[in-house]
Amino acid sequence: MFFHKKVLQNPATPERPDPLFAKKLQEILGGQFGEISVAMQYLFQGWNTRGHDKYKDLIMDTATEEIGHVEMIATMIARLLDDAPVKDQEEAAKNPVIESILGGMNPQHAIVSGLGAMPVNSVGVPWNAGYIVASGNLLADFRANLNAESQGRLQVARLYEMTDDRGIKDMLSFLLTRDTMHQNQWLAAIRELEAKEGVIVPSTAPPELEKQNMSHVLYNFSEGEESSLGSWASGQAPDGAEFQYSAEPGPFTEEQKLKPAPPYTHNTLSGVTE
Amino acid sequence: MFFHKKVLQNPATPERPDPLFAKKLQEILGGQFGEISVAMQYLFQGWNTRGHDKYKDLIMDTATEEIGHVEMIATMIARLLDDAPVKDQEEAAKNPVIESILGGMNPQHAIVSGLGAMPVNSVGVPWNAGYIVASGNLLADFRANLNAESQGRLQVARLYEMTDDRGIKDMLSFLLTRDTMHQNQWLAAIRELEAKEGVIVPSTAPPELEKQNMSHVLYNFSEGEESSLGSWASGQAPDGAEFQYSAEPGPFTEEQKLKPAPPYTHNTLSGVTE
Amino acid sequence: MFFHKKVLQNPATPERPDPLFAKKLQEILGGQFGEISVAMQYLFQGWNTRGHDKYKDLIMDTATEEIGHVEMIATMIARLLDDAPVKDQEEAAKNPVIESILGGMNPQHAIVSGLGAMPVNSVGVPWNAGYIVASGNLLADFRANLNAESQGRLQVARLYEMTDDRGIKDMLSFLLTRDTMHQNQWLAAIRELEAKEGVIVPSTAPPELEKQNMSHVLYNFSEGEESSLGSWASGQAPDGAEFQYSAEPGPFTEEQKLKPAPPYTHNTLSGVTE
Amino acid sequence: MFFHKKVLQNPATPERPDPLFAKKLQEILGGQFGEISVAMQYLFQGWNTRGHDKYKDLIMDTATEEIGHVEMIATMIARLLDDAPVKDQEEAAKNPVIESILGGMNPQHAIVSGLGAMPVNSVGVPWNAGYIVASGNLLADFRANLNAESQGRLQVARLYEMTDDRGIKDMLSFLLTRDTMHQNQWLAAIRELEAKEGVIVPSTAPPELEKQNMSHVLYNFSEGEESSLGSWASGQAPDGAEFQYSAEPGPFTEEQKLKPAPPYTHNTLSGVTE
Amino acid sequence: MFFHKKVLQNPATPERPDPLFAKKLQEILGGQFGEISVAMQYLFQGWNTRGHDKYKDLIMDTATEEIGHVEMIATMIARLLDDAPVKDQEEAAKNPVIESILGGMNPQHAIVSGLGAMPVNSVGVPWNAGYIVASGNLLADFRANLNAESQGRLQVARLYEMTDDRGIKDMLSFLLTRDTMHQNQWLAAIRELEAKEGVIVPSTAPPELEKQNMSHVLYNFSEGEESSLGSWASGQAPDGAEFQYSAEPGPFTEEQKLKPAPPYTHNTLSGVTE
Amino acid sequence: MFFHKKVLQNPATPERPDPLFAKKLQEILGGQFGEISVAMQYLFQGWNTRGHDKYKDLIMDTATEEIGHVEMIATMIARLLDDAPVKDQEEAAKNPVIESILGGMNPQHAIVSGLGAMPVNSVGVPWNAGYIVASGNLLADFRANLNAESQGRLQVARLYEMTDDRGIKDMLSFLLTRDTMHQNQWLAAIRELEAKEGVIVPSTAPPELEKQNMSHVLYNFSEGEESSLGSWASGQAPDGAEFQYSAEPGPFTEEQKLKPAPPYTHNTLSGVTE
Repeated sequence: MFFHKKVLQNPATPERPDPLFAKKLQEILGGQFGEISVAMQYLFQGWNTRGHDKYKDLIMDTATEEIGHVEMIATMIARLLDDAPVKDQEEAAKNPVIESILGGMNPQHAIVSGLGAMPVNSVGVPWNAGYIVASGNLLADFRANLNAESQGRLQVARLYEMTDDRGIKDMLSFLLTRDTMHQNQWLAAIRELEAKEGVIVPSTAPPELEKQNMSHVLYNFSEGEESSLGSWASGQAPDGAEFQYSAEPGPFTEEQKLKPAPPYTHNTLSGVTE
Repeated sequence: MFFHKKVLQNPATPERPDPLFAKKLQEILGGQFGEISVAMQYLFQGWNTRGHDKYKDLIMDTATEEIGHVEMIATMIARLLDDAPVKDQEEAAKNPVIESILGGMNPQHAIVSGLGAMPVNSVGVPWNAGYIVASGNLLADFRANLNAESQGRLQVARLYEMTDDRGIKDMLSFLLTRDTMHQNQWLAAIRELEAKEGVIVPSTAPPELEKQNMSHVLYNFSEGEESSLGSWASGQAPDGAEFQYSAEPGPFTEEQKLKPAPPYTHNTLSGVTE
Repeated sequence: MFFHKKVLQNPATPERPDPLFAKKLQEILGGQFGEISVAMQYLFQGWNTRGHDKYKDLIMDTATEEIGHVEMIATMIARLLDDAPVKDQEEAAKNPVIESILGGMNPQHAIVSGLGAMPVNSVGVPWNAGYIVASGNLLADFRANLNAESQGRLQVARLYEMTDDRGIKDMLSFLLTRDTMHQNQWLAAIRELEAKEGVIVPSTAPPELEKQNMSHVLYNFSEGEESSLGSWASGQAPDGAEFQYSAEPGPFTEEQKLKPAPPYTHNTLSGVTE
Repeated sequence: MFFHKKVLQNPATPERPDPLFAKKLQEILGGQFGEISVAMQYLFQGWNTRGHDKYKDLIMDTATEEIGHVEMIATMIARLLDDAPVKDQEEAAKNPVIESILGGMNPQHAIVSGLGAMPVNSVGVPWNAGYIVASGNLLADFRANLNAESQGRLQVARLYEMTDDRGIKDMLSFLLTRDTMHQNQWLAAIRELEAKEGVIVPSTAPPELEKQNMSHVLYNFSEGEESSLGSWASGQAPDGAEFQYSAEPGPFTEEQKLKPAPPYTHNTLSGVTE
Repeated sequence: MFFHKKVLQNPATPERPDPLFAKKLQEILGGQFGEISVAMQYLFQGWNTRGHDKYKDLIMDTATEEIGHVEMIATMIARLLDDAPVKDQEEAAKNPVIESILGGMNPQHAIVSGLGAMPVNSVGVPWNAGYIVASGNLLADFRANLNAESQGRLQVARLYEMTDDRGIKDMLSFLLTRDTMHQNQWLAAIRELEAKEGVIVPSTAPPELEKQNMSHVLYNFSEGEESSLGSWASGQAPDGAEFQYSAEPGPFTEEQKLKPAPPYTHNTLSGVTE
Repeated sequence: MFFHKKVLQNPATPERPDPLFAKKLQEILGGQFGEISVAMQYLFQGWNTRGHDKYKDLIMDTATEEIGHVEMIATMIARLLDDAPVKDQEEAAKNPVIESILGGMNPQHAIVSGLGAMPVNSVGVPWNAGYIVASGNLLADFRANLNAESQGRLQVARLYEMTDDRGIKDMLSFLLTRDTMHQNQWLAAIRELEAKEGVIVPSTAPPELEKQNMSHVLYNFSEGEESSLGSWASGQAPDGAEFQYSAEPGPFTEEQKLKPAPPYTHNTLSGVTE
C-alpha cells in the first residue's frame, strides 16, 4: 500500500511562467527516461522480486521516491503554464514574444490538459510501458537501472543549460543530486552481485553451453581497424578470459536457402519465377 | 554503406518445424531487447558519434554484426514455420498435436507473412524505435548497451530451456556466446571511460551544481529497514564520497498549491467548489 | 451499409488560411476525444449491440452523424492549409509572420499529406483504437459516451477561445451545439437505464459478491482530511447505502512475500543474496 | 511525496498456480481500464487540480489507493505464475493439461519477466498514457472516472465468472467492492457539481455561443425510427430544454469543394485529370 | 454526410460459433490491411482531393462501401462469438474441444468487448492511423490503394483455406470478389494517370533535378549476381530510359566524419577518448 | 551477414547548420515512408523469400543499399544540428533568427540525442514496424514497394522545395535519382510477374471462388455519378473482363440482428430495455 503526504522534496516553483520550457520539461516526466519510467520500472522490479529482502527494499525505497519526483515535475510544469497565452498565432506575430511562445508551446497543454502536466514526452508522444525493464534477474535489472539513471541525469544536465530561471535550475539541481545517489547505489549493488556471480548475465548459463572459440573475439565487420586499439580487443576481459581480434570475420555457414511455401499460403508459386 | 554476403554465422537450421517455438523466438528478433533493437541502437550510436574513432569503430563493428543476427533468427523462424498447419482449430481439436499447434501459434505467421518472420515480439506487438538509446554520451550509452546485452542473453538462456531441438539449441548457444563477448566488450569500454571521467554520468555536470547534503543519502520511503544493510547505505560510494542512510526522509517543502486557471481554459471555476 | 451525400452540416469555410490553427484543430479530428474516436466508438457499440433496438438505433444515428463531423473538420483543415508557405524557416525569419507560421505548423501537413487533413492529433500522434470503448454493457458504454462528449465539448470551447476567424468560430459553434445534444441524449439514456438497473455497473454482479464492510468507505490515503467534507464521505450514497469515512485505513494483510523462482528462469538465485 | 507500507488490502493468494489466468488478469492490471490507468489518471488529475481542496484531496486519496491495487494484482499474477511449466509445447501435447497451459500462457511471462507481472494487457500490449484523461475540468473528469470505474468493475465481474479458485475470487470480490465505492463517490461528486453548474460540460461555454435550433435535435441518420421512442427524442432534456426528433436530417450546406493545390506540393496537377 | 441503412451486402452468418476463427478474422477487420484501414485511407484521400471530380467520386464511392465491409465483418465476428465458453482452462483441459477454444481465443473478446468485435488485429494490437496513406498525389495514392487491395485479398484467400464453415466461406468469397473489382479499378485509374504523367511519381520532379548517371543503375550490394538476370538490369526501363547494372557499386564519397559536440550537450568530451 | 564500409554514396554535407530542416528531414529517415521503412521492408521480404533467386537477390541488393541511405540521412541531420542553439526561447525572442530556430526545432535533438539523428519522423513519433509489408507473395509485395518508393520520392520532392541550401539539395537530388531507379525496377518486376500470373493478387485464388456478378461492378455509394465517367466503370478491365456500373447498389441482405448475450458476460440484460 502507498500513502501520500502533501509535500515535495523541492519547492518546484519557477521565477516566472514559461510554457516553452514546460514543453521541454515533459521529456523528464513522460519520456523514455523520465520519472514515470523509473517509477514504474522500480515498482515492477520490486513487486516481482522473489525473496532477496534487502534488494527488494532498496528497490521499493527508490520506486516510492520516484513517484514523488513525478509529482514534483508535474507541479513545476503546471506552474510554468500559469496564464499561458493561447490566442491565434498569426495575430500574435505582431508581438514577437507572445508569438514565439505560441509557436513553440505544446498545443495540448492548452486544448487537452487545461494548463496541466501530461504523461507525454517533449514532443507529445504518450508514455508507454514498452520503455521499462523488469526481468527477475537482479544484476540484469540493476544494469537497466544504472542506464536509466545515467540517461536521466544526462537529460537533466542538458535542460539545466537551457534556462536561466533560478527556480527551475534549483529543481534541476535537486534532480542532478538524486540521480548521483541513484547511480551510486545501483553501482554499489552491481558490485555486490558481480563479486558473487561474476560479470556475465545470467551467471546460470555457464560457459559450457557456449561456442568457446567465439566468446571473446571482436569481429571486424566495419571497415577500418581502429577498434582493435581498445582494451576490448586484446588482454584480459572483465570475465577473466583473453580478448581476441579477428580482422577478417569467418568462417561462415553456407547460403541462406528456404524451402518453397505450401500452396495454401498463396505465396508466389515456384513455377512463376522460373 | 553496407554490403551483404549470402552466409550466416550459424546454420540456423532446426531439426524439425515448430511453429510454436517460432512464435516464442520472435521475442529475441523483434522484442524490446531483440536483435532489431541492438542493431538499430548501435547503428544510431555509431552514426551520431562525433570523433572518438576507436569507439565509433567498435560500435559500427558490433552494429553490423547484429544486422546479421537479425537475418539469422529470421531464417530460423521461417524454417520453424515450414508447412505449418493452418486448418480450423475446432476440427483440429480431434488431433491433439495439431490442435496444440493451432492454438498456440501466432496467427499472423499464417495470415500476414505467409510463413515468414515478422518484425514483432513474442505476443505480436510490432517493434518500435522507442526501445532504443543513443544519447551522444558514450559512457551513458555503453551502460545502455551492457543492459541490452544482459537482458538479451537472459532471454536467450530462458529460450534455451524451452526446447530440446538440437538445431535451435545450437543457434541459441551461438547467441549466448556472442552476448558474452558483447557484455565483455562494453564492460571493458565502460572501465576505460570511468577511469578517465569518473563513474557519474555526465561527468561534465559537476558536484558544485548539486545539493551536497542529498547526493549520497538513501531515503527510507518503503517501510522496513532491510535496505540499510546493503553496501549502498554506508561506507564509500563508487564515486568516492560516503553513503548515508536516512530512516525518516525529510525535510520537505510546503504543500503543493497551484494558482487558479484562467477563464479561457474552461476549467472548473473557483466559485463552483466553494 | 452506408451512403455518402456530398454536403456538410456546416460550411466549414474559414475567413482565411491559417496553417497554425490547422495543426491545433487536428486535436478534435484525430485526438483521444476527436471525431474519429466518437465515430468509431459508436460504430463498434452499435454493431455489437445484441437486441435493445431503440438504443442500437440511437447509437447508429449518432455514429453516422459523427462520420460526417470527421468530414467537416477535415474539410476545414484542408482549407486552413490552402497555399501554406513551406520555405525554409531561417530565411523566413526575416518576415516574422511567415516565420511564425513555419515554426508552428505541423511539417507533415506539407511533407506527407500535401496540405490535407491527417488522422493525427494536435502534436501529430496518429489516432489509435486504444482510445475507444465498446463493452456490450449499455450503461457502462453510455457513461463512456457522456465522458467523450464532455471532454470533446471542452476542447471545442478551448479552441473557440483561440481564434477570431468567424468561419472557424461558426463551425466550432456548430460543434458546441451538437455536443450539447449528445450530452443530453446520453444523460437521458443513462437515466432510463439507472432507473431500471440501479446506478452500479454491472447491476448483475450483486452486493452479495462483495465485502460488505468496504463497499461504501472512503479511505484517507492522502494526508489531510479535506475529502471528508464532501457528499461522498457521509450521508446516503447514490446506490442508497450509507457512506463512511476512514481516517486511518486498515486493517491490512501481512507483508507481500513471493516464492523463489525456479532455476530455469535464470532469475537471481536465492543463495547469491544471502 | 509517497510512502510505501509492506502490506496489501487483500491477501492476493490463489489456491494454486494458474498461468493462463495470470495472462487474463493482466487486463485489469495493464489494460485500458486496468489499475495502472486509474492510478495514473487520478494522479494527474490530482496534481493538476488548481484549488478545489476537498475535490483534490478526494482524487489524491483514491489515486494513492489505486497504486496499491496495482501492487495487489501484480502480486497475484506473480503467484499464479509460480513454477509455470515452460517446456516445448509439441512435446507437451502428450499431456493435455500441460499442453493447454503452454498454448495459452503469455510467453513473455516466461521469457521477459521471469514469472513476474508485466505492465501489459491480456494480449500483451504495453500500457500507454493515451488511455488516461485529466482535463482540468472537474465535472468532465469525474465523468471520465465514473466511466473508468464502470468499465473496470464490469471486467472484474467477467473475470469472476472465469475461475473457481477461491483465492482469486476473494481478491476479485474485494475489487468489485471498492469499485462500488468508487462509482458511488464519483456519482456523488458529479451530483454536487451538476447542482451548481448544470449538466452540460463546460458550463462556461453558454447557450448563446450555440446554434439554438440544433442543440436538442436527434437526427435520424440510421434507417429506422426506433430511436424516436426513447426519452432522448421528446420531452424535457436533462438541461431543461425540449428534445426534438428530425426524421429527415437537414438542411445541409453545399458540396464540399477544395481549391487546387499549389505546384510546390507536387500533388496531382489540375490539368492531368481534365 | 453519411447515412446508414440496416442491411449488409452479405448475410455474414456462420454455420456455427467459432471463437478461434473470430480471433483470426480480426486481422481483416483491424489489421494493417483490414477494412478499417481501407475505409479510413479512402475517406482521407477523398476528403483531401482538390478538384479531380471523377477520381474524388470514385474514391468516395469505394470509401463508403468499405465502411459497410467493416460492419459486415464485425457482424460475423459477433456471431462467431455467440455463447463462447469462458471458464477456466485448466478445468477445461479435460474436454479437449472446450480447452482448445479457451487456449486459442482472444481473452479480450470475453473480458473487454462482451463477445463483440474489436478494432484490433488477429493478435489484439489496436488499429492505428500510421497504417494509412493519403498524400494528395493521386498516382502515388492509387498505388497505395492497389497495394492495400492486393495484401487484403491475399489475407482473405489465406483465411478461406483455414475454415470449412460455409457461412464464413461465403462471406470471404464475397470479399475476394470485391477486392478483385477494387484491384481492377485502381489499376485502371493508374493506367489513366500514367498515360498522362508518365510512370515516375511525382512527375513534377523532373529528370533535370536528378543525377543522371545514377537514375537507372542496379547496384550489386548483395553478393551474387542473380539479380542481373532480371528485366530491371538491362533493356528499356518502364520510363523509357535504359537500365544498367553495376557489379561493383561506386564511386563513393569519403569517410563519414562529424564535428565535435559543443560542451552544453554533455556529450563525451573530445579529450576523454584521446 | 553484412559488412560496413566507411563511405557514403553522397557527401551529405549542408552549406550550414539548420536545426529546423533537421527536424523536417527526419520524415524521410524515420517516417512511414522513410529509409528505415524501406530498408526493413526489403530486408524482411528478402529473408522470407523461399526460392525465386533473382528476385530475392534484387530485394537484398536494394535492402542493403537502403541501410546506407539511412546512414546518409542520419549524417546530414547530425551536421544540420552542429552547434544548434538551445537557450531559453523567451530570452531568445529578442533575436528573431535564434528564436525561430528554438521554437521550431525538435527539442529531443537537444535533450535526448545530443545533436544526433533519431529514429523518429518529423513530428517526433518513433518509427514502428507496423509500417512495413512482407507477405511472401512477390507481386503483392512489389506493389507495396512501388507504393513506398512513390510516396518516398514525393516527400523528397516536397523537401527539395523547402530549402535553398545547395548541400541539402544535392543529397535530395541523389535520393530523387535513386527513387526513380527503384520505381523503375519494381515496375519492371511487376510487369514480369503480371505477364505470368495475371494482374489480380493472389492469382491462386481463382475466379471460381468469387461471386461472379459482383467482381467487376462499381457501386455508386457516394452521391453523384462523376465516377461513372472513368475507365473503371465501363469497357475492359485490366484482368480482361468487362467493367459495369451500378447507380443504385443492391440487392442487400436483411437487417443485422444479433443473438442476446449470455448472462456471464454481464452485458445489458434483455429485460432491462424492454
